[in-house]
Amino acid sequence: MNMILLQPSEIDEAGYAVLSDDRARHIRRILKAETGKSLRIGLLNGPLGTGTVEAAETEAVKLHCVFEQSVPPRPSVDLMLAMPRPKVMKRLWPQLAALGVDRIVLIRAEKVERYYFDSHVLHPGFYEQRLIEGLQQARCTQLPEVLVRPLFKPFVEDEMDALFSGELKLLADPSGDRRMNESVSVVDPPGRAVLAIGPEGGWTPYELDQLQAHGFTLFGMGPRILRTDTAVVALLAQLSGCVAARSW
Amino acid sequence: MNMILLQPSEIDEAGYAVLSDDRARHIRRILKAETGKSLRIGLLNGPLGTGTVEAAETEAVKLHCVFEQSVPPRPSVDLMLAMPRPKVMKRLWPQLAALGVDRIVLIRAEKVERYYFDSHVLHPGFYEQRLIEGLQQARCTQLPEVLVRPLFKPFVEDEMDALFSGELKLLADPSGDRRMNESVSVVDPPGRAVLAIGPEGGWTPYELDQLQAHGFTLFGMGPRILRTDTAVVALLAQLSGCVAARSW
Repeated sequence: MNMILLQPSEIDEAGYAVLSDDRARHIRRILKAETGKSLRIGLLNGPLGTGTVEAAETEAVKLHCVFEQSVPPRPSVDLMLAMPRPKVMKRLWPQLAALGVDRIVLIRAEKVERYYFDSHVLHPGFYEQRLIEGLQQARCTQLPEVLVRPLFKPFVEDEMDALFSGELKLLADPSGDRRMNESVSVVDPPGRAVLAIGPEGGWTPYELDQLQAHGFTLFGMGPRILRTDTAVVALLAQLSGCVAARSW
Repeated sequence: MNMILLQPSEIDEAGYAVLSDDRARHIRRILKAETGKSLRIGLLNGPLGTGTVEAAETEAVKLHCVFEQSVPPRPSVDLMLAMPRPKVMKRLWPQLAALGVDRIVLIRAEKVERYYFDSHVLHPGFYEQRLIEGLQQARCTQLPEVLVRPLFKPFVEDEMDALFSGELKLLADPSGDRRMNESVSVVDPPGRAVLAIGPEGGWTPYELDQLQAHGFTLFGMGPRILRTDTAVVALLAQLSGCVAARSW
């Protein structure tokens, strides 16, 4: 936890917040914060700031919060991911928030088991906590937006074009001959980009056709076949180096 | 397991191998391989090839192995990593092999607990299995070389220069102003590169000075602070896009 993230509703009009959960324990036990100490804080979807410890004697910790004027921009990268095994998705949530993804769309694909969508890892109460964990690690405040779409065809045909309008659309698949950095202009880097990553078993030819028909450019990662969790982190990192308004 | 990796000692002069471990179970249960079926195989530190199932009726599986003429080149990237928590290192082993690292040097740093070096995750018998798991995932045969160096100073002063001679040396630290792709020439990409990544708490000023005095160029990753496991995968992925003899 490199920053304490606060919800707007936790701060009163005078700028005070009283915490009594994991964050309070972290402040007392790990940061060993005493009265008067300054801590890095952030407001969810808002600015970064400084919290001054007013009292930390009891279980609860009282902070006086002062925020910066400007709000950090949202990340410029979206991720469209074929829903991985729930265990993998559980590990991915904090990493996606830490790497900086604006919108995470979890879609069905032929080689995605339908029951993955019944998992508790897709409950907002579960994943928001994991995303906030990643934000607090990375010192970021912008909570990724999550869209769960258990039907491939209606999403692709009816919703996807509007969602990613104006973005560079990149489709990762072993069948791609070009590498990612050959598909992104260095001279005129895109302002925003969406990265589509398939299931462990790969996209089907139908899915590849459909996504390309909707403006996605195919690229490959060379001969190595990576596990979904490794591939997602690796490709988001490569893409972050390519877009204009880089998030890191 | 996208490839079955074999040790040279497992193959007899006529090209037959009899497997009875996890690989045999994988061939029978997951690949559902019957007599006559061709499987992707690889020879440890050698060529890729094809294994034809000769018999799979019993617990053991007999393969006839034919290998390609050429051996894939070793990856062109080395990693020098401040030893992370053993739990994190355990997860990293297969990912490092899958991403393609030639040499992995695990070093001590001020903010690395000394007891990390007593962990079973640094026993060759443990990590070789995890590395092979990663090679079989990624369809690669080149086992990374592992060097464990529990003393920072003697390694840096006496051994490091010769080890990374002629390589581009990159040092990741939040204090770096330039990004990685500003430190690597696009026009004349390096043939080989070594990436140094510090502990969760960061390198100390002394460590940064020492490494830079030995030819490392400092770079930063922007404001986001990533967990070691995320950072390692992300930075190796970015670097792979920058070196000339790209491994993926």
